[in-house]
Amino acid sequence: MRAVLALFALLAACGTSAPPLESPGGPGGEPGKDKEGQAAAPAAPAAAAAAPASAPTPIADQYREVAAKIIAAAEADEGAWQKLSYLTDHIGNRISGSRSLDKAIEWAAATMKADGHEEVRTEKVMVTHWVRGEESAALVAPVERPIALIGLGGSGSTPGKGVVADVVVVKDFDELDRLGSQGQVKGKIVLFDTPMGPYSPEKGPGYGQAVEFRTRGPARAAALGARAALVRSLTSHSLRTPHTGATRFEDQKPIPCASVTVEDSELIARLAASGERVRVKLLMKSRMLPDAPSANVLAELRGREKPDEIVLIGGHIDSWDVGQGAHDDGVGIVMSMQALTLLRKLGLHPRRTIRAVLFTNEENGLGGARQYAADHAAELSKHVMALEADSGAFQPRGFDVQAGAPTVRQLTDAASLLRPIDGQRIEASGHAGSDIGPLAAAGVPLLGLMMDDRHYFDYHHTEADTLDKVDPHDLARDVAAVAVLAYVVADMPERLVASPPEAEVPRR
Amino acid sequence: MRAVLALFALLAACGTSAPPLESPGGPGGEPGKDKEGQAAAPAAPAAAAAAPASAPTPIADQYREVAAKIIAAAEADEGAWQKLSYLTDHIGNRISGSRSLDKAIEWAAATMKADGHEEVRTEKVMVTHWVRGEESAALVAPVERPIALIGLGGSGSTPGKGVVADVVVVKDFDELDRLGSQGQVKGKIVLFDTPMGPYSPEKGPGYGQAVEFRTRGPARAAALGARAALVRSLTSHSLRTPHTGATRFEDQKPIPCASVTVEDSELIARLAASGERVRVKLLMKSRMLPDAPSANVLAELRGREKPDEIVLIGGHIDSWDVGQGAHDDGVGIVMSMQALTLLRKLGLHPRRTIRAVLFTNEENGLGGARQYAADHAAELSKHVMALEADSGAFQPRGFDVQAGAPTVRQLTDAASLLRPIDGQRIEASGHAGSDIGPLAAAGVPLLGLMMDDRHYFDYHHTEADTLDKVDPHDLARDVAAVAVLAYVVADMPERLVASPPEAEVPRR
Repeated sequence: MRAVLALFALLAACGTSAPPLESPGGPGGEPGKDKEGQAAAPAAPAAAAAAPASAPTPIADQYREVAAKIIAAAEADEGAWQKLSYLTDHIGNRISGSRSLDKAIEWAAATMKADGHEEVRTEKVMVTHWVRGEESAALVAPVERPIALIGLGGSGSTPGKGVVADVVVVKDFDELDRLGSQGQVKGKIVLFDTPMGPYSPEKGPGYGQAVEFRTRGPARAAALGARAALVRSLTSHSLRTPHTGATRFEDQKPIPCASVTVEDSELIARLAASGERVRVKLLMKSRMLPDAPSANVLAELRGREKPDEIVLIGGHIDSWDVGQGAHDDGVGIVMSMQALTLLRKLGLHPRRTIRAVLFTNEENGLGGARQYAADHAAELSKHVMALEADSGAFQPRGFDVQAGAPTVRQLTDAASLLRPIDGQRIEASGHAGSDIGPLAAAGVPLLGLMMDDRHYFDYHHTEADTLDKVDPHDLARDVAAVAVLAYVVADMPERLVASPPEAEVPRR
Repeated sequence: MRAVLALFALLAACGTSAPPLESPGGPGGEPGKDKEGQAAAPAAPAAAAAAPASAPTPIADQYREVAAKIIAAAEADEGAWQKLSYLTDHIGNRISGSRSLDKAIEWAAATMKADGHEEVRTEKVMVTHWVRGEESAALVAPVERPIALIGLGGSGSTPGKGVVADVVVVKDFDELDRLGSQGQVKGKIVLFDTPMGPYSPEKGPGYGQAVEFRTRGPARAAALGARAALVRSLTSHSLRTPHTGATRFEDQKPIPCASVTVEDSELIARLAASGERVRVKLLMKSRMLPDAPSANVLAELRGREKPDEIVLIGGHIDSWDVGQGAHDDGVGIVMSMQALTLLRKLGLHPRRTIRAVLFTNEENGLGGARQYAADHAAELSKHVMALEADSGAFQPRGFDVQAGAPTVRQLTDAASLLRPIDGQRIEASGHAGSDIGPLAAAGVPLLGLMMDDRHYFDYHHTEADTLDKVDPHDLARDVAAVAVLAYVVADMPERLVASPPEAEVPRR
């Protein structure tokens, strides 16, 4: 699918109009089937929807000069890097409920005020308040060996001095269920030793396929009576590096659960495969506290003609409690902050409003995303587009689009303006960003900034997600991509075609 | 130098005789200048020293068939992998003085006896007994942040609850001396933030250039009154991974010293560069105990005609106290063990003896290397060659040779037999291996197994040096390279030309 869509985007980017494919977002994307989303928006400009083959596309033509100006300014600008340096080196990581997240929110609001933006404000959100405590693990049989681990957000804690139990190694849920039905899971520590596949240019990182063992594995093991769960870290490249992340127990009582490194997961699996009885001691002292107050941070570049129509750009201000939260997602929020600043400095005031939203609590609750959708329900029909950057900061490639076919065509046209920085691709994988996800139900076209993410999951949710991993020039080009797309969509004469409602856009 | 020598080897490997260069090892390598080493050995076969251009070289011709047989057997053999698996998973890392090193020595001797080798024995060596204790560090100003570190072998310890001091960041010894002369080092913690350059095909890894800051930096800082020293980890690829290693204080009282990660080193340097006062708290509880008994492990495939002439192959059995000591140097000892076993299984009994030596205490003292040279002083003139494998297990490339020019030509000829596995290169960088180094003084030609080491220093001296990083097929080909070279040199009719004494072979 990814390859086909890339071809589609390539054709469009070459100035050849795309063949009359079905919507890459699914059959619901065909104009004839559009419902609420379509009804809430003006019709697409006819020229954009049916550009003659080989004719220059209209949006790109109107904005070629201004796009080049924005790109040049972004590439010469160090503002995003300076903001990111302060956030990472002076504030550091910032999990929901932490004092450092409060500091980051204060800093972001103050910085956006200092940059002269309008309507700078924080909007209260109650967020998950999970706190990591002492945590350790060791093999106690057949050999004694420390295990490098990191608790998963939402993990339960062990009683007293920890638990010692036999380990059951499984590769997938079928194996878990089979062993469970044989009574071999009850009272044991389950290890999900499922490798995340390596990056491939066609399929991207293997994260999407492997993440369910982290998010759902511990709960499924708990349901079968497991005392604890360990999950192989989600990475294809480890230097004995544990990767944290969220897990979900819904209404179940959480059991202790943690990610172990690829190295230790394979060691345990090798020992178990040789027929030896493998026993692990696990100690985890995390606590789930009552929800804590936090906030989304908003700022605007107000529209000159239609200020009530909104192009949303954003990322998330919280991070996990390790490393510096640089690629995830310090870069995403500074891209939005600096895109707004750059356009303002260039004196570019678009027809519609561009609103930067720095969402809180993306990592372990999505409280910020839900609260924004609820607080702004009345104006969601006025949200022309929402663009999230939450895949790190690398060489931009283009945008993952979650929208109907006519919108995809318009965005393909607009994104062609990023060809000078090789950021023009449009793919319609159906997932643009977690924080903007709730807006899909209102027919808001969603975009995720897409990059060369081959190394993103090397650092993701680890102590290694630090400023030194970010290339300043990549970050500057990402700002250019956000600024150009947001400006063009906010300024173009006709409003971007709205999407069909979420139900008809498949999610990956 | 490396590129020139590679060209030299390439010419030779192509069947073109090398031009009459000076010895790559330096002018001392010219035949006319050979002294003791040369005198102790028979003259080189005339044909090898002056093969006519385009004529097949004589050693390779004699052994082509048997070399192919050894390579095929090695590539089909899993013995080295099985030995390495047991050593790493069941014994684990093994620092000098540890119980696990004792276990490894017992296991290696028992395994070599079980494989049917002759003269299997341990030879007592007294070794450094440094023990890591609790260790931690944190930035306390201008921000509070944990620092990931690992103490250096030989480090001193901090008093009581640790020290808190200002940090002085230096890039090199000139900067250290300049600040020292201004009184800015006394009482401070010195950070050597000197990056190790990235791997390049021409120059290899940047380790050689950067390692002096770890080995000599802490002592030089101590001489200027520093309270402690931190050294940026020696790697060009970090996931917040601290790398340990040895440091030397000679007659000085050791100060506390540790490696910090690339990430933390850069963070401290950024904060200091911005003009802020940077303070670090450091706690280290290592202890230097009296020397402990350990042993080299020896085994032989006895020569059928000249059993008193010895071709030594080896690696080191000790490791640092982190990870599993897989690439450094579990692989090296299993290559020697399995090369011997493979030749024996093939019924190949060479004219001379092949002796495997698993040296102890390479990492922090070289006690095993010195003891071997002392214990065997009387028979060193009978050592025809010594080959060490201590650069991990990757695709073999050839051999780093420390010998005179005539010997280099003979070895170039012999190594051409490894062209089927692309392991035929001969480079004469002047450093073959630390454990065999003391044999150079007796004119023993030294070889180091050379490989594609671009990733070696990603894992070197870290928790990430584990079995999963070793490719079984690479390891099997390394065994082939060791077995072929050792067999041919042990069996060829004329003895390999001895080297000039060490004084005339420059060391890198």
